[in-house]
Amino acid sequence: MSQILVVGSVAYDTIATPSGSVENTLGGSANYFSIPASLYSSVRVVGVVGKDFTERDFAIMRERDIDTSGIQIEDGETFRWSGSYIDNLNEAVTLKTELNVFRFFNPTLPAAHRRTPYVFLANIDPVLQMRVLEQVESPQFVALDTMNYWIDSKLDALKKVLKHVDAFLLNEKEAMKIAQTSNIVVAVQKLLELGPKIVVVKRGEYGFFMSTEGRHFVLPAVPVANVVDPTGAGDSFAGGFIGHLCRSGYKRGGDNYRILQEACINGSVVASFCVEDFGVGALKKLTWPKIEERLAHFRKVVSVWS
Amino acid sequence: MSQILVVGSVAYDTIATPSGSVENTLGGSANYFSIPASLYSSVRVVGVVGKDFTERDFAIMRERDIDTSGIQIEDGETFRWSGSYIDNLNEAVTLKTELNVFRFFNPTLPAAHRRTPYVFLANIDPVLQMRVLEQVESPQFVALDTMNYWIDSKLDALKKVLKHVDAFLLNEKEAMKIAQTSNIVVAVQKLLELGPKIVVVKRGEYGFFMSTEGRHFVLPAVPVANVVDPTGAGDSFAGGFIGHLCRSGYKRGGDNYRILQEACINGSVVASFCVEDFGVGALKKLTWPKIEERLAHFRKVVSVWS
Repeated sequence: MSQILVVGSVAYDTIATPSGSVENTLGGSANYFSIPASLYSSVRVVGVVGKDFTERDFAIMRERDIDTSGIQIEDGETFRWSGSYIDNLNEAVTLKTELNVFRFFNPTLPAAHRRTPYVFLANIDPVLQMRVLEQVESPQFVALDTMNYWIDSKLDALKKVLKHVDAFLLNEKEAMKIAQTSNIVVAVQKLLELGPKIVVVKRGEYGFFMSTEGRHFVLPAVPVANVVDPTGAGDSFAGGFIGHLCRSGYKRGGDNYRILQEACINGSVVASFCVEDFGVGALKKLTWPKIEERLAHFRKVVSVWS
Repeated sequence: MSQILVVGSVAYDTIATPSGSVENTLGGSANYFSIPASLYSSVRVVGVVGKDFTERDFAIMRERDIDTSGIQIEDGETFRWSGSYIDNLNEAVTLKTELNVFRFFNPTLPAAHRRTPYVFLANIDPVLQMRVLEQVESPQFVALDTMNYWIDSKLDALKKVLKHVDAFLLNEKEAMKIAQTSNIVVAVQKLLELGPKIVVVKRGEYGFFMSTEGRHFVLPAVPVANVVDPTGAGDSFAGGFIGHLCRSGYKRGGDNYRILQEACINGSVVASFCVEDFGVGALKKLTWPKIEERLAHFRKVVSVWS
């Protein structure tokens, strides 16, 4: 089985939505990505936690054969985020961000991690994303996510690392911000000009817009009747997306369009589970039969040939 | 060739968008619907204009074999609407509405129109929609559109006419408003409970969400790189949708799912042309080869099997 390396946040989240609330639940982009990706492939996490990070939460990762040897344990508290979706289920209002040990995070890859073929640079400082990428020897595929904060504060560093990635995954608002347009077709074109061969714009309940090789592949989200908590949906999409690429043996330069299409669909399906429970609740219970059942359902929803 | 009857507004629009502006251009739901629908089928318009309505604009309809004998010509000015998309291309700000002769519109169908098999009740007062429907003898298929104004002011009348229609076409905000939810799956379920067997929620640049026979069919919009003017996109969608049903010989009670899917796709394609020029500019130039070319393109954009 091939491997995926992910660098991102490992966090404790406090979340309020119209369905209820949770406190200090396991979160962070690295977890939302790794837990579903571990169904597709072997995953190695690079991140940082404080001494308060519980053995129970390490166990959630290790039970899934997620390699936690790249998670640094530092004096202090784990990164904490608190957000509310009470007024708008599509966009969180951040109530509090406590960087804690994340403030001084300087990712250093264990020797065994340096030859990981698939790399996901989740949403962290683009300077750190670059530093991680420099430590990986000839990766087969690199994907990157970002957020408004880095687009506003470190656009040059972001553009620099983008020259070295295969796929740029980001949400629609971020895409429009970087491309300075309100048209998605124009936006993906401008993003492709920054270097990545593949751009995947995540549109929340409206699905995704992928552009690569001069073609667009666009689908809505999997319909979900009860959205409990959208936190992490984008990272879990990346987990299904890159998980599928890794599992399919994606190689640069091949005829990959079909694999990329299926990767988007796997991302959509994984994200549809993510939002059905708080935090990583639904992702922890995810199984192959569940994924396959929903893949079949989704095909019917979007196919004229069903 | 089978016939479609449409009742709606015939108007002169003044529109400003980031691409420019037009004054007193031919508009109104009846025109945005009829011009593309006339490529699929024979269309009869029921509406009202003032004495200022020009022969040139009547000619635009008649050249397409659109039957204008149901358009009443009254003393006074034609309905005028003025809107701006300068700040948001997805939603018009209405600057001025002059109902003029539309204020006293009391639709009366010419005898020859009373047996039209396909009926589109475009967005007008639901009391008038009902009055039109009562004049049609055993229609084969009835679709209805509405808007926030009627949802707020005449919900009971709207619910009454909905009990007599096959398909309810409306935009997403309107769907959420009637269903009092923010979840699209919940919304379509509640709308189906009002009577129509088919609900098609139009989501603008995010496409459509159709629900019928316990199944969902959902696709994004056709990607358009240069959106000039979104006015009338929803009515032109209805034109392609009902045009396709009429052309395919849609009959109640048959196995219609595939025809309904294709109708949604035709609606999407027609709407994608509509937004590429001001007013009905692009719709007037629409031809079958153009529709077929874009249908083929759209299939590639949304198909895993392309």
